[in-house]
Amino acid sequence: MISVTAVFAAAAAFSADSGPAALEQSFDRLIVPAEMEDWLKILAAEPNHVGSPHDKANAEMVLKLLQEWGWDAHIESFDVLYPTPLSESLEITGPTPFKATLTEPPVAGDETSTRSAAGLPAYVAYQGDGDVTAPLVYVNYGMLADYDELERMGVSVKGKIAIARYGEGWRGLKPKLAQDHGAVGCIIYSDPHEDGYTMDDAYPKGPARPAAGLQRGSVADMPIYPGDPLTPGVGATRDAKRLKIAEAPTVLKIPVLPISWGDAQHFLATLDGRVVPRAWSGSLPLTYHVGGGGTPVHLAVKSDWSLKPLYDVVATLKGSTYPDEWILRGNHRDGWVFGADDPLSGQVALLAEAKAIGILVKQGWRPKRTLVYLSWDGEEPGLLGSTEWGETHAVELGKKALLYINTDDNARGFLTAGGSHSLQHFVNQVADDVTDPETQTSVAKRLRAKLQVDGASPTAGAAARADALIAADASKDLPIAALGSGSDWSVFLQHLGLPTIGITYGGESNSDGVYHSDYDTYEHFSRFVDPGQVYDTVLAKTVGRLVLRSADADLPVQRYGDFADEIGRDLTEIEALTVSKREQALIQGKLLSDGLYHLADDPTLSSAPPTPLKAVPHINFAPLEDALDRLRQSARAYDRALIGKGGALSGAVRDQLVQLTRSTEETLAPEVGLPGRPWYRNLIYAPGRFTGYGAKTLPGVREAIEEQRWADADRYTALTAQALTRYADKLDEAVHLINGG
Amino acid sequence: MISVTAVFAAAAAFSADSGPAALEQSFDRLIVPAEMEDWLKILAAEPNHVGSPHDKANAEMVLKLLQEWGWDAHIESFDVLYPTPLSESLEITGPTPFKATLTEPPVAGDETSTRSAAGLPAYVAYQGDGDVTAPLVYVNYGMLADYDELERMGVSVKGKIAIARYGEGWRGLKPKLAQDHGAVGCIIYSDPHEDGYTMDDAYPKGPARPAAGLQRGSVADMPIYPGDPLTPGVGATRDAKRLKIAEAPTVLKIPVLPISWGDAQHFLATLDGRVVPRAWSGSLPLTYHVGGGGTPVHLAVKSDWSLKPLYDVVATLKGSTYPDEWILRGNHRDGWVFGADDPLSGQVALLAEAKAIGILVKQGWRPKRTLVYLSWDGEEPGLLGSTEWGETHAVELGKKALLYINTDDNARGFLTAGGSHSLQHFVNQVADDVTDPETQTSVAKRLRAKLQVDGASPTAGAAARADALIAADASKDLPIAALGSGSDWSVFLQHLGLPTIGITYGGESNSDGVYHSDYDTYEHFSRFVDPGQVYDTVLAKTVGRLVLRSADADLPVQRYGDFADEIGRDLTEIEALTVSKREQALIQGKLLSDGLYHLADDPTLSSAPPTPLKAVPHINFAPLEDALDRLRQSARAYDRALIGKGGALSGAVRDQLVQLTRSTEETLAPEVGLPGRPWYRNLIYAPGRFTGYGAKTLPGVREAIEEQRWADADRYTALTAQALTRYADKLDEAVHLINGG
Repeated sequence: MISVTAVFAAAAAFSADSGPAALEQSFDRLIVPAEMEDWLKILAAEPNHVGSPHDKANAEMVLKLLQEWGWDAHIESFDVLYPTPLSESLEITGPTPFKATLTEPPVAGDETSTRSAAGLPAYVAYQGDGDVTAPLVYVNYGMLADYDELERMGVSVKGKIAIARYGEGWRGLKPKLAQDHGAVGCIIYSDPHEDGYTMDDAYPKGPARPAAGLQRGSVADMPIYPGDPLTPGVGATRDAKRLKIAEAPTVLKIPVLPISWGDAQHFLATLDGRVVPRAWSGSLPLTYHVGGGGTPVHLAVKSDWSLKPLYDVVATLKGSTYPDEWILRGNHRDGWVFGADDPLSGQVALLAEAKAIGILVKQGWRPKRTLVYLSWDGEEPGLLGSTEWGETHAVELGKKALLYINTDDNARGFLTAGGSHSLQHFVNQVADDVTDPETQTSVAKRLRAKLQVDGASPTAGAAARADALIAADASKDLPIAALGSGSDWSVFLQHLGLPTIGITYGGESNSDGVYHSDYDTYEHFSRFVDPGQVYDTVLAKTVGRLVLRSADADLPVQRYGDFADEIGRDLTEIEALTVSKREQALIQGKLLSDGLYHLADDPTLSSAPPTPLKAVPHINFAPLEDALDRLRQSARAYDRALIGKGGALSGAVRDQLVQLTRSTEETLAPEVGLPGRPWYRNLIYAPGRFTGYGAKTLPGVREAIEEQRWADADRYTALTAQALTRYADKLDEAVHLINGG
Repeated sequence: MISVTAVFAAAAAFSADSGPAALEQSFDRLIVPAEMEDWLKILAAEPNHVGSPHDKANAEMVLKLLQEWGWDAHIESFDVLYPTPLSESLEITGPTPFKATLTEPPVAGDETSTRSAAGLPAYVAYQGDGDVTAPLVYVNYGMLADYDELERMGVSVKGKIAIARYGEGWRGLKPKLAQDHGAVGCIIYSDPHEDGYTMDDAYPKGPARPAAGLQRGSVADMPIYPGDPLTPGVGATRDAKRLKIAEAPTVLKIPVLPISWGDAQHFLATLDGRVVPRAWSGSLPLTYHVGGGGTPVHLAVKSDWSLKPLYDVVATLKGSTYPDEWILRGNHRDGWVFGADDPLSGQVALLAEAKAIGILVKQGWRPKRTLVYLSWDGEEPGLLGSTEWGETHAVELGKKALLYINTDDNARGFLTAGGSHSLQHFVNQVADDVTDPETQTSVAKRLRAKLQVDGASPTAGAAARADALIAADASKDLPIAALGSGSDWSVFLQHLGLPTIGITYGGESNSDGVYHSDYDTYEHFSRFVDPGQVYDTVLAKTVGRLVLRSADADLPVQRYGDFADEIGRDLTEIEALTVSKREQALIQGKLLSDGLYHLADDPTLSSAPPTPLKAVPHINFAPLEDALDRLRQSARAYDRALIGKGGALSGAVRDQLVQLTRSTEETLAPEVGLPGRPWYRNLIYAPGRFTGYGAKTLPGVREAIEEQRWADADRYTALTAQALTRYADKLDEAVHLINGG
């Protein structure tokens, strides 16, 4: 591994006049894997969750480093509701009593795992404390479709404790839906089917989740709003107006605990009732029953519900030409325990970029626009640090921020990018220029290979085959994903309507197995996730290019054809969804009126017919179709004009164009917000109300149809069409500018 | 439960002049569940495999009963190659030695299971004896697609012992494909994912396979030909010309053993190498590795390869009007051990029908056509009893047999019917008239309900949705399945071209868990499979109607529109298959020439590019398309003519029509047979060469395309078209007859 001194010597070759390619080459040489490894070891040495001493120490270390590297850095603090666990217990009270261990003992060969005493116990943030005793009902993944199945089995969770396995949708929905269906408590466990021995050898032999491994996490109802539950829409500054805890809609009302499969198997073995449907069986060596009438289980959780401090580190490097145009780049710093992979693998890439940029500045380069590097606290319990900062600075960000780039955990493998589709081309340009260390081709080319090989598999689905077709066509950009929830982009993309990119590498290691457990340690990371910080280096080079290019670009980095294509696909999907839901409702109505569910059921098993679906009226998609036509035309005109004439534009026009891109994207996030959750203003991208992590595009319309809210469907068809039309107006304005209007 | 005396009294109400509906009502009253239960207890009391004393005793009991009931019955014997196991062993020879138990100990509460000493050990018929020591390679289900995956993982079974799990395709293909790929031995084990605790509670708590449960079976290469390996195409009579064992192509060359998961887990735990692809993991609590370089395993099997006697019981009831027109109805009698469900549940239904018919005859009724009831021996090792009998009597059957009706194991639940599509309407007519005991509606109506409910599920595939559409349309017949392999219909349908029906009930119990094990006992059957012989009764009533109606029908029971529709669907599938294979080959060629497999692979894992697919030329489907057009016209004309004028035809014309149906179906099975396996003459229906159980329709063409044999594809397109055209000629001949020509 190259020494730090050698790197400085090599970088010295760069001079400010050498141009962007030379700049990036110099930048690359300043990314030093051994330094990232050193930082990772220190940051991940002790539990570093919100409120822990090491969380604060890490903030101070990051602050000091950034300042040393020449950044104008400070710690910005917030006071947030953060329930600190006081006691938790879970036990079988029946004839064969069993008390859940709720602990993750140290693992041979992992010295870090011996230091977990100061870490959080088995715990999920923003559950509702309680002490309940009731029989268990197994609800599979605990998603909406599972409750449909439970209904068909004639089984209710009312007055029971739901036990759900991790997977399929966001953790927080499991207790939320259990609560909505009348459960008095909820247990979430890690089945080996999802991330244990079925996936890979269990830690320490392999990377997968061991018997005692448990997954902490947030169960705040973040699809309503993320951030501090007490201060929706405003920063949780010391003197902010706060809700009472009982009024905070994102805090659950029932007690919830996460457990390992080592504990869970004892509880699952006690369940009675029907054998579960085939798809509900996990990989434990037992027969899964749905339960409902068996041995009662006692669940008790108690927390300290006081406010706790957050420490966001904010580092600025003022732009030489456009100091009031900001490029934001963030990664959180808090983990659930040691957090070596999640989030520190991304955090050390951020640090490496910041250091390299600092050196480049010392060598005479300076970004034209201002860079803001952000080391977030409190992402894990609910995107706290980013949300409170974004809400606090909303007005200034509305004027200055051009772009937010997010990373989080990172691993060996392939590029995954998500974000605003107007940035799809930009991401592709960068991916074409970053070399994959395992194959010595570009990360874009490697991803194209992977998509083509996956799409050629005999078991490939329609989506994989479609992606393969795009990947095989070098003239087309690789698709980026729409962003739902799961990391710190939410406030920027979904609340403020800021152009956003999320980047990660992965797919070749199995780091899920230690996700949010005591075992996400430096030892695990360096053996299984990214030995030698090879893909952390690639991440820093990728994000570094996004930052350097967007900071110095003379012209907007956006292209709008990709965005129009995305909206076209979304609308086609939604129209097809409407047709299929209408058909479903008709078919189900006939099955119900003919009594066919009863005839099809096994009379020896409990069962019940499903709740009737509402008839699906015809939705007026015309405004959206018109808006899409308009958007397509405007986007095409813009892209053509910029490619044709961009180079010849005057500096003043170019500056105006860049400013326009900011306000163009903002049109997608009008004040009105989404139905029932107005914090989410972006009418194009949102986390699904009932998927959580998963994105829903055109969510106002799509979810209204999914959830049989026909009035909302009509209303949001019009609102979304208006937003897209305003977007097209902005593009036309830009074309007018380019054409010298 | 109604007493036998009462039944006789009730049945006495029937008189020969009361008509078919009254006849069937009388027949129904003569089916006595308690009698079936008594026979089942006796037949399943001891192990009854080929060569066992109880197999012979059962033949004699069945003979005696049939004779008592007035049938002209005899035992017809054959001498077949039947390897009787002498010794078998399987052990890990490494540092942690383990010897497979290969035994199924008695189970609490199952008295029968204590009597298994005289039964067969862990054993599969027609493996090749041997004594080998080699490392294991886990090959998932051991089907062709799995070897494609192994190739991509850079793993070979050459010189190794393959370990495959049961499921996905026919057992015999697993060692056959292992042998073809160079393996020196093969182990097949029952993973709990398929039929163990993952499916249901294990026996004795529930019906599923317990830890020690193992699945015996045949591994003869039956897709070449079934029956005695030494006498292909001719009956294994005492003086038949026999192949030498070494020349018999259906006997494997490598040793094979079936084991339980209780044994298998020890072997799987020793495997090294790559972690398997996600879809390859079973439900055992361990990480599945592909192996290939680990601890050697020692496998030894030795058998006595002498000839053994078979005892088919053949019972005839001469027809009053058409003694030389035969309705055949068979079910095998030999089990792997006790065989309560498989095959004795079907055998006792056959006995109940035969007894009821005997009583009806005593009361004055007599079938117009001759009934032949057949209690087959030796189905399990390779459809021996039916095949040898069919081959022996081929000439006579060619003249006299009109229809073969088969049953086998049976269970609680829904009707499943398969067979010649010209009989689809006939099966539907009968299903409309049999009452389902759990819902008091007809079994057809219940099946329609089930298909509609299944098709309305959000996870339903295209096939299920298509079936649901048909089921919802009362004017349409419920589809019957094409028959592949798996029971005694093969020689009749696929070798002799005889119209065939297979009937079974099931889907509400989980009887797979004891399939071919020591635990397929009366105790298991009466607790889990069909308590009270309720669905055995339904089976007897269903088959009884098929027998009575086809024996007495004035007009042919066939309708040909259903058959033409089936051929239309098949041809559409094959044309789509050709297009998709052509596309696949093109895509794969590009991926290979661009080196993309290499780029997509994880360089830390073993891997290799796939074998290049052959380019797919354009196949001349025109002859088949012409033949299909012709068939559609002729079928429509026939069905219309028969419905319009059938009732007014003279007796002589009706007789000629019935005779024609026999020779019509025979046109589908010309002498030439299928490529590489001429025993299979039927060009419409065959077991898949590489699926075994699963049917392939238009197999000469379809499999040629699947297997890249382009010359065969062209040749069999023409041959199949000729067969279908001759079929249409026969229909035209019939129409001519009906129209008074």
